[in-house]
Amino acid sequence: MSTPDGVDRLSEQLAELIEARRFDAVKALMHERNAPDLAEAIDRLPDQPEALAFRLLHKETAWQVFEYLSFEAQEHLLHTLSDADAAALLEEMAADDRTALFEELPGKVTRRLLNLLSPAERRMAVQLLGYPEDSIGRLMTPDYVRVKPGWTVAQSLGHIRVFGRDSETLNVLYVTDVSGVLIDEIRIRQLLTVEPETTIAELMDHEFVALNVLDDESEAVEAFRRHDRTALPVVDGAGVLVGIVTVDDVLDVQEREATEDIQMLGAVQALEDPYLQVPIWTMVRKRAIWLVILLFGGMLTAEAMTYYEDELSQAVVLAIFLPLIIASGGNSGSQAATLITRALALGEVRLRDWWRVMRRELVSGLLLGAILGSLGFARITLWAIAFDAYGPHWLLVALTVGVSLSGVVVWGSLSGSLLPLLLKRLGADPATSSAPFIATLVDVTGIIIFFSIAMVFLSGTLL
Amino acid sequence: MSTPDGVDRLSEQLAELIEARRFDAVKALMHERNAPDLAEAIDRLPDQPEALAFRLLHKETAWQVFEYLSFEAQEHLLHTLSDADAAALLEEMAADDRTALFEELPGKVTRRLLNLLSPAERRMAVQLLGYPEDSIGRLMTPDYVRVKPGWTVAQSLGHIRVFGRDSETLNVLYVTDVSGVLIDEIRIRQLLTVEPETTIAELMDHEFVALNVLDDESEAVEAFRRHDRTALPVVDGAGVLVGIVTVDDVLDVQEREATEDIQMLGAVQALEDPYLQVPIWTMVRKRAIWLVILLFGGMLTAEAMTYYEDELSQAVVLAIFLPLIIASGGNSGSQAATLITRALALGEVRLRDWWRVMRRELVSGLLLGAILGSLGFARITLWAIAFDAYGPHWLLVALTVGVSLSGVVVWGSLSGSLLPLLLKRLGADPATSSAPFIATLVDVTGIIIFFSIAMVFLSGTLL
Repeated sequence: MSTPDGVDRLSEQLAELIEARRFDAVKALMHERNAPDLAEAIDRLPDQPEALAFRLLHKETAWQVFEYLSFEAQEHLLHTLSDADAAALLEEMAADDRTALFEELPGKVTRRLLNLLSPAERRMAVQLLGYPEDSIGRLMTPDYVRVKPGWTVAQSLGHIRVFGRDSETLNVLYVTDVSGVLIDEIRIRQLLTVEPETTIAELMDHEFVALNVLDDESEAVEAFRRHDRTALPVVDGAGVLVGIVTVDDVLDVQEREATEDIQMLGAVQALEDPYLQVPIWTMVRKRAIWLVILLFGGMLTAEAMTYYEDELSQAVVLAIFLPLIIASGGNSGSQAATLITRALALGEVRLRDWWRVMRRELVSGLLLGAILGSLGFARITLWAIAFDAYGPHWLLVALTVGVSLSGVVVWGSLSGSLLPLLLKRLGADPATSSAPFIATLVDVTGIIIFFSIAMVFLSGTLL
Repeated sequence: MSTPDGVDRLSEQLAELIEARRFDAVKALMHERNAPDLAEAIDRLPDQPEALAFRLLHKETAWQVFEYLSFEAQEHLLHTLSDADAAALLEEMAADDRTALFEELPGKVTRRLLNLLSPAERRMAVQLLGYPEDSIGRLMTPDYVRVKPGWTVAQSLGHIRVFGRDSETLNVLYVTDVSGVLIDEIRIRQLLTVEPETTIAELMDHEFVALNVLDDESEAVEAFRRHDRTALPVVDGAGVLVGIVTVDDVLDVQEREATEDIQMLGAVQALEDPYLQVPIWTMVRKRAIWLVILLFGGMLTAEAMTYYEDELSQAVVLAIFLPLIIASGGNSGSQAATLITRALALGEVRLRDWWRVMRRELVSGLLLGAILGSLGFARITLWAIAFDAYGPHWLLVALTVGVSLSGVVVWGSLSGSLLPLLLKRLGADPATSSAPFIATLVDVTGIIIFFSIAMVFLSGTLL
C-alpha cells in the first residue's frame, strides 16, 4: 500500500515541477495516485502551488481529493475558486464531510458557501448544522437507501439502481412506514440471495438498533462497539428515520475522544486542532489553566512544610529524602488514576464496582509499597555502610524512609483510584482528575505522612 | 436503542427466573432481545445459570449470542457443551472472531477445539493462527466475495446469491486474476447500477488499496483512517488476495492502541485484559517495574539534595518551597510529553518537525513560566506582608522562587517535548516516555536549577 514516505516524495516532486512550470508533468504525476495521497501531498504545498496543483487535477478526481484535504486547505481553495467551481465542489461532497467543513469555517464564510448550494442541498446542510455540536445529528449523512414494506426485491433493486449512487453504504437498506418511522433494516445480502418477487415485508424481522439524533456522539461509538456494524440508522424522538451514521466517521470520533482523555490526563484542556496548528495563545491558555490550579494546590505543600519547619531545621536529612517520597506517592497515584479513568471510559469498571476497585488497589498498594519500602530501606543502609552517610542514627532514618515509602504508595493507589470514581459520581468527566492533579494531592498528604512517621521513629534522637 | 441499564435489568430478571426454575419465562424473555444485549446479560450471570441460560436460547440465535460473549464465558461454555454442540458453534463463528477466541485459550484447549472443526475450517483457522501476533493476518477474515474479470454482472450477482451468505461485507467485491493476485476492487453499487450483461473487466479501473498480511495491525488503523472504507483487502508478498479486514475490527484495534498509550503514559506496562480481570499479580508486576525504575530515578534527587545539604541547613526556607517548584516543573513536563506523544501517534507531528516543536515549546514555556513565576513571587510577597513570614530577606526569597519557577517550567516544557521525539528517533515507543518519567527527570534537574538560582540571589544574605 501507499506509505506516508511516498507522499513526502510526491509532495516534493509536485513542488519542484510547479516551480519549473512543468504543468503537464504535474498532471501526469497526479494521474497515477489515489485521492488520499494526493490530498496529503497537496496539503503540504505552500498556498500558491497548492491552488495550482489542485486546478491541474482531473475534474472528476478533484472533488474526491477535496474531501480528503485539511479544513485549512479546503477553506483556502474555496476562497480562490470561482463561485461556480466552489458550488460544484460542495455539491459533490458527502453531506457529513460538508457539515464538518462548515463547522470549521467562520460564520460569514459558511453563510456565503451555503448560498452556493442547490436549495435541496442547502436545506439538508442547514438541518445538519441545526443539531447540537458533538451530537449524532452532526455526524450523520442523509445519503442512504430507504425501501417500503410493500415493495418486491426486484422493485427495491430497481430503486437502488436509480437512487443508490449517492448512498454511503449499500450493505443495509432501511424500511420505513408511511409516516417515515423506521420499522426495520434489511441487509443487502438478503435481497441478493432470495427470489426477485419476494416482498420486503417477507424479509422483515423487526429487529434493528437505532441511534437517537440528539444523543452525544460518544453514544454512537458505544453502539458501534457493541454491535458489529458498518452503519447504524438515526431516528428522531418520534422514531422517524432522519439519517445514518457510518463506522468510518465513528472511527474519527473514537480517536478524538481518546485524544481528549489523554490530554486531560496530561493536565491539558483538550486541544481542538492538531498540535502544530493550535494558535500558540490558545495552547498557552489551555495549559496555563491547569498549571495554575496545580500551582495553587502545590502551595499547600509550602504550608505543610512550614508547619514542619522546626523538624526540618533539626534534621536536614529529612529534606534530602522528601522529593523521593512524594514523587513515589505521586507516581503510584498517577498509575491508579490512569487505569481507573481508562477503565471507566471503556465501561470495564462501573460506579457500583467501587468496592472491588478499592480492595484491588489496597492489595496492589500494599504489595507495591512493600517493594518500594524495602528498596528505599536498602538504599539508605547501603550508603550508610559504604559511605558512612546519614550520621549515627542512619538505621532509624532508613526505617523512616522505608515505612514512609510504603505508606505513600498505599495512599497514592487508594486516592488515585477513588478520585475518578468520585468525579464520575458527581457527574464530572473522570479524565479531568488528571494524573498530575492526583500527584499534587499526594504531594501534600505525602509530606504529612512522612513527617508523622519521622516523629514516631526519630523523636528522642534526631527530633 | 437498548441501553446498558436495560441489560442490568435483563440480567437480574434472568437470574431470578432461573433461580425459580421458570425456564419457559426465561425463553420468552430472551426471545425479545438482540444478540449483544443477551450476550452481555448472560456474561454477568454466575457459571451455572450462565450455561443454563445459554442452553435455553433458540438454536439459531445461540451462535450469534456466542460471538458477542466474553472470551471467558466462551471458554467456559465450550467446556460444558458436548463436542458436537461445540463444533457446531465454532463452525458458525466468523473466522476472525474464532481466531481471536483461540488466541485467548490455553494451547491444549485450542488444539482440542481445532479438532472439532471441519477440515476446511481447520485449515483456515491454523493458517490465521500462523500469522504473527498483532499482525494484519490475525485480524482478517477469509469471508469475502471474489469475482473474475471475464464474468458478467449477472454472473457475479448469481455468484453472490450462492456464496455471499457468509461474506462479512458485500459493499465491495474483489477481482483476482488466474493466479489469485488482486487486480481490482468493485463496489457493489457499480454492479447494481449498470446493465446485467456488462463484464467486470469493463467496470475495472485498477485503482485499489490493499494491506499486507504481515504488517502490524496499527498499519490497518492508519489505512482506514486515510481511506474512508468499510473493508480493505489483504494481500501476501506476491500480491495474492488472502483475506479482508473490516472496519469494525479496526475500531477494536484503535481502542486497544489508545488504551496502551494511555496506560504507558500513566507509567503502567500495557495491561492486556480489562482492569477488573487482570490477575492481581500481573497488575502488581506491570506497575512495580515502572515504580521501581522511577524510584531509582528519584534516588538521584536524594543525591542532588545531599550535594546541597549545607545550603539547606543554612536556609530551611528553601526546603519549604522545593516541593512546589519541582512539582511545577514536573507538571509542565507532563503536559508537553503528553501532547507530543499523542501528536506523534496520530501522525500530526513527525520527527523532522522537531525544530518547530522546540520553538513552540520555548515560546509556550516562557509564557507559562512568566505566569507561574509571577504567581509564586506574589504568593511569598503577600504572605511576608500579611503574616510577616520568611524573615527579613523575604524579597530575595520571593525572587528566588519566582525565577526558579519560570526556569523549571521552561525546562520542563522543552525536555518533556524533546524526549518523545528522541525515543521515536531511537526506534522506541514514544509513549514509554511516560509523563511520570519526565516528572522524575525534571525533579532532579529542578533541584539543581532551584539551588543554583538561590546561590545567585541569596549568597551573602541567607547563604
